[in-house]
Amino acid sequence: MIEVALFGAGRIGSIHAANLVRQPGVRLKYVADVNRAAAVELAVKHRAEVRTADAIFAEEAITAIVIASSTDTHADLVQRGAAAGKAIFCEKPLDLDLVRARTCAQAVGKAGVVCMIGFQRRFDPTFAALKARLAAGEIGEPEMLVVTSRDPGAPSIEYLGTSGGIFKDMLIHDFDIFRWILDDEALTLFATGSCLTDPAIASVGDIDSTAVTIRTRRGRIAQINTSRRAAYGYDQRFEVLGSKGMLQAGNHKPTEVFAHNAVNVSQDKPEHFFLERYRDAYANEMAHFFDALANGKPLQTTIHDGVKALELADAATHSWRERRAIEL
Amino acid sequence: MIEVALFGAGRIGSIHAANLVRQPGVRLKYVADVNRAAAVELAVKHRAEVRTADAIFAEEAITAIVIASSTDTHADLVQRGAAAGKAIFCEKPLDLDLVRARTCAQAVGKAGVVCMIGFQRRFDPTFAALKARLAAGEIGEPEMLVVTSRDPGAPSIEYLGTSGGIFKDMLIHDFDIFRWILDDEALTLFATGSCLTDPAIASVGDIDSTAVTIRTRRGRIAQINTSRRAAYGYDQRFEVLGSKGMLQAGNHKPTEVFAHNAVNVSQDKPEHFFLERYRDAYANEMAHFFDALANGKPLQTTIHDGVKALELADAATHSWRERRAIEL
Amino acid sequence: MIEVALFGAGRIGSIHAANLVRQPGVRLKYVADVNRAAAVELAVKHRAEVRTADAIFAEEAITAIVIASSTDTHADLVQRGAAAGKAIFCEKPLDLDLVRARTCAQAVGKAGVVCMIGFQRRFDPTFAALKARLAAGEIGEPEMLVVTSRDPGAPSIEYLGTSGGIFKDMLIHDFDIFRWILDDEALTLFATGSCLTDPAIASVGDIDSTAVTIRTRRGRIAQINTSRRAAYGYDQRFEVLGSKGMLQAGNHKPTEVFAHNAVNVSQDKPEHFFLERYRDAYANEMAHFFDALANGKPLQTTIHDGVKALELADAATHSWRERRAIEL
Amino acid sequence: MIEVALFGAGRIGSIHAANLVRQPGVRLKYVADVNRAAAVELAVKHRAEVRTADAIFAEEAITAIVIASSTDTHADLVQRGAAAGKAIFCEKPLDLDLVRARTCAQAVGKAGVVCMIGFQRRFDPTFAALKARLAAGEIGEPEMLVVTSRDPGAPSIEYLGTSGGIFKDMLIHDFDIFRWILDDEALTLFATGSCLTDPAIASVGDIDSTAVTIRTRRGRIAQINTSRRAAYGYDQRFEVLGSKGMLQAGNHKPTEVFAHNAVNVSQDKPEHFFLERYRDAYANEMAHFFDALANGKPLQTTIHDGVKALELADAATHSWRERRAIEL
Repeated sequence: MIEVALFGAGRIGSIHAANLVRQPGVRLKYVADVNRAAAVELAVKHRAEVRTADAIFAEEAITAIVIASSTDTHADLVQRGAAAGKAIFCEKPLDLDLVRARTCAQAVGKAGVVCMIGFQRRFDPTFAALKARLAAGEIGEPEMLVVTSRDPGAPSIEYLGTSGGIFKDMLIHDFDIFRWILDDEALTLFATGSCLTDPAIASVGDIDSTAVTIRTRRGRIAQINTSRRAAYGYDQRFEVLGSKGMLQAGNHKPTEVFAHNAVNVSQDKPEHFFLERYRDAYANEMAHFFDALANGKPLQTTIHDGVKALELADAATHSWRERRAIEL
Repeated sequence: MIEVALFGAGRIGSIHAANLVRQPGVRLKYVADVNRAAAVELAVKHRAEVRTADAIFAEEAITAIVIASSTDTHADLVQRGAAAGKAIFCEKPLDLDLVRARTCAQAVGKAGVVCMIGFQRRFDPTFAALKARLAAGEIGEPEMLVVTSRDPGAPSIEYLGTSGGIFKDMLIHDFDIFRWILDDEALTLFATGSCLTDPAIASVGDIDSTAVTIRTRRGRIAQINTSRRAAYGYDQRFEVLGSKGMLQAGNHKPTEVFAHNAVNVSQDKPEHFFLERYRDAYANEMAHFFDALANGKPLQTTIHDGVKALELADAATHSWRERRAIEL
Repeated sequence: MIEVALFGAGRIGSIHAANLVRQPGVRLKYVADVNRAAAVELAVKHRAEVRTADAIFAEEAITAIVIASSTDTHADLVQRGAAAGKAIFCEKPLDLDLVRARTCAQAVGKAGVVCMIGFQRRFDPTFAALKARLAAGEIGEPEMLVVTSRDPGAPSIEYLGTSGGIFKDMLIHDFDIFRWILDDEALTLFATGSCLTDPAIASVGDIDSTAVTIRTRRGRIAQINTSRRAAYGYDQRFEVLGSKGMLQAGNHKPTEVFAHNAVNVSQDKPEHFFLERYRDAYANEMAHFFDALANGKPLQTTIHDGVKALELADAATHSWRERRAIEL
Repeated sequence: MIEVALFGAGRIGSIHAANLVRQPGVRLKYVADVNRAAAVELAVKHRAEVRTADAIFAEEAITAIVIASSTDTHADLVQRGAAAGKAIFCEKPLDLDLVRARTCAQAVGKAGVVCMIGFQRRFDPTFAALKARLAAGEIGEPEMLVVTSRDPGAPSIEYLGTSGGIFKDMLIHDFDIFRWILDDEALTLFATGSCLTDPAIASVGDIDSTAVTIRTRRGRIAQINTSRRAAYGYDQRFEVLGSKGMLQAGNHKPTEVFAHNAVNVSQDKPEHFFLERYRDAYANEMAHFFDALANGKPLQTTIHDGVKALELADAATHSWRERRAIEL
């Protein structure tokens, strides 16, 4: 039995809790949150108890922690978890500061613990199937990747002001998709963007529409386009051109109803947002984490992936601000 | 707390068990099965106990029963459940014999208990969304229904020999879809069919490919085509032509990966079979049953629907054998 | 140089004229029509001359005739053309009367002339590609055919009153598709239908919505559903289930624009009607006719096909009126 | 009657010839080509005559010229045509040298003649419908454009050596699409690329895979990705994100056949190459040119568009070579 403590009883913490209690041989023992009421509610729901971080790190029976608290707490919790010898699952991003993230990764490396970063998209059924087919050689050598990543709407301006900017907050996932799908690292990166959907976003120094181009060590090319607002919902697509063909990952939709009328032929718009689209992905990543722990299998994402994605987000932020291509 | 007894610990019984234990305010208390080992295993899994039918019907605390045992036991269990005042969920078909099914329905009526028949397709997200849009008038008055219903492969010949024939075993669902979608009753029915996929099916007096045409009281028209074998998997589609347009229910597929190569552009074939395609439908129907019980809401399918679908299956069998249209 | 006379300068005659003048080695020499003004206009447009039928049949230089005049003139013109030794292209239907159609076919047979019936759908790029792939064995043995055939709207009641009824006027094409695709003949046929879109149609003894089921000599099954009105345009689809898979022929649409908005994801509805959808088919059938004439190739449709389709339309009319299955 | 001279009797010249002779009130009078045999063949086909450029420019009856000769002759012919007061249709690109193209445009401006550049994609039914819907405000304000433009295979290395490079030879069309769709001009442009499909392409100093990002004066963003090789054929798509939704232009395919089998569900790959995909576009642009001439309507593309697209191609070439973003 793997006994687990969960940090963070908010929206994403609740999702992780519900998924982890379904894993065979896994028990949610403790929940910690600065919002004690939220911690209690979630703990009660899953027959767990509320504990402080100190108590959690001190208890040897806890062999794994799941970090779903606010971003500014991630690095500290990862380092404490590493020091205490816990297996760690940490939500993205590791940290908004690249230096601190690297320090964190060193601590994890020294401690010799495992640390999975919650890049859940790798566990989406469509994305994972595409990756498997690409790896099996179905379209030969990959040459070009085009990623479209658009949210249905922007978060609050308050949140945006502390988010680290769109590249670290939103594109961090797309940078991970890029590294994972092309199995390659960036050599040159160019980013640009605009504030087109809401001037309030510009007022906190951020943008809402971006375009990033990456050329890799092997000469492969990736383009990422993102927006904080797509009127039609959550748009999560990518396509890979290879020497023998192309693989595309399309959006998921709620039903397969098609309507014909005097105007047009229509179908459902994509699932609304990440909680709907990535419901399976969140379940799959938690299953993967505990399966890897229980059976000594390698993790599909590690703290290294967290650092590398942040490096790209950092470079993109510089590129956008300085209006120049960045060599990595 | 609604305390429930489950009859049948086979494949479909296990699915119902897993779904019902997730309902708030519902507890699986007993499992009964002629195969005691299966009953024990399922009971242990869900912290229930094994009991005989006699014990179950005698226990007042049990207010609802779920019947997922073999078809030949359905009518008897429904009648005993009705006599004991239990709320009943019964898998389709109610019985292979129309007279017996009607007797059963009378017993339920007299006892004043609720009895839902497991026509799970009505709870499929795609089918339910189509029905709701149709009911909202999106395509005006319905005029024509075309149902395509094909299995990936036939069951064993042993099973087929006791199945009651393709119309009662397989099309029973399609007849229910017909009644539900058009909200109308059959006036004339013509059925024909052939044995095209395996001569062994003919050897037990059955066919594997059928075509049924129904004209309703309001003059609406329905066509149903079925096959025991579709090389590409489980094909579950229908479309309704209305005065203002058409609504189609398409197949579900495992992923949204699209592949382009030198030959063609392809996507996943449909989900393999009913366990995959109707996973959500099975969960939704169980949620509906217990929600209706708990909150005094009307059931979306009743024993009447079970009888009416069987009437159509019976008429279709006669039409096919006698090569003539049947007036209902 | 093949010199041709065209009977009929109406809508379909104009289409045939425009297509035939583009064939290499073919010259439109004469146009005949009871509406002399129409004949003159069409003749002038293509540098042809207006002639009477008598003059045309008397002129030996005319080796081929294209009959696109009103249905009631077809049989007579075919017989006169046969007697005069002309190669004949005749629009469908050959005649509304089965006996007369058979007499016509005998005359053609005796005269030893070729006579192609204008079942243009066989020459539609989508339908022809499907047929070729089926013939190449891509889905094994065909087992079941489902044909959906719906017009955007009904013709005038005046026309309907002389049309011979929906089975001869509209389904004649679908019956030909059935024979062509399954390469088989009907054994049993059941037809039903209703008047659902306009009571005026019933007032001339006709219906607007039909369902036909055919079982063939080899036990194959076909279902045809038709309507005089589809709010979304011309719906021309069919699908063939075979032992190894399924081939579907979908509708054509004007453009490949897809729109995503806050309501749904939509695309163009199908091309409006037969003039748009079968533009290529009309061109291809004319090319085929003259290519066959010039190079001594066999015609893909003959007067025999015209008779057989009419037999099915006749049987369907009887089946519908007499509410019984017809053995052929 | 507009009398026309055509320069260039090659592949594209033949297409223009076939399209222009179909325009009412237009007559192809002369054909000129350095390959006299080709000129004669094309002239004979359309009942035109072969003439030298000198003779053509000297003949007043010729009021319009169509330039479809090799790229290096365009500028000279445009300037001579302008000097002679002819209306000009010129294939893209105007010239490979930006200075010369601008000189050319000045000459045209001074002469006051019309000069349409053959950006035929604007006349593609799908692209034109999308543009019209965008202009009608269907998706609000455009924010982002993603263009995918891939050829089925590269031209000969000999050709590539004189092509001016991929940005001028291939992306010139995509740059025009960008300007036309967003109705905006570039402010910043970044281009990168690789030679991934054939080292011979690198040997002539060119690349085969490119990614271009443009930020416009209004802050809109465009991404273009291209490849000289797509195993699945000619890939010509773009999509526009707007404040109220998205419009996508998809590929065209030869037929609407869909196949289901034990492996997948497939449809036709896109039409092979530009001659197939843009058949209608070539016809439409010629119709537009002569309609504009005959009826004094404004041309939808002018020599200004030719210069602007070349400016972007030039900037992209610099950006790629110098690995930096270019301010325009």
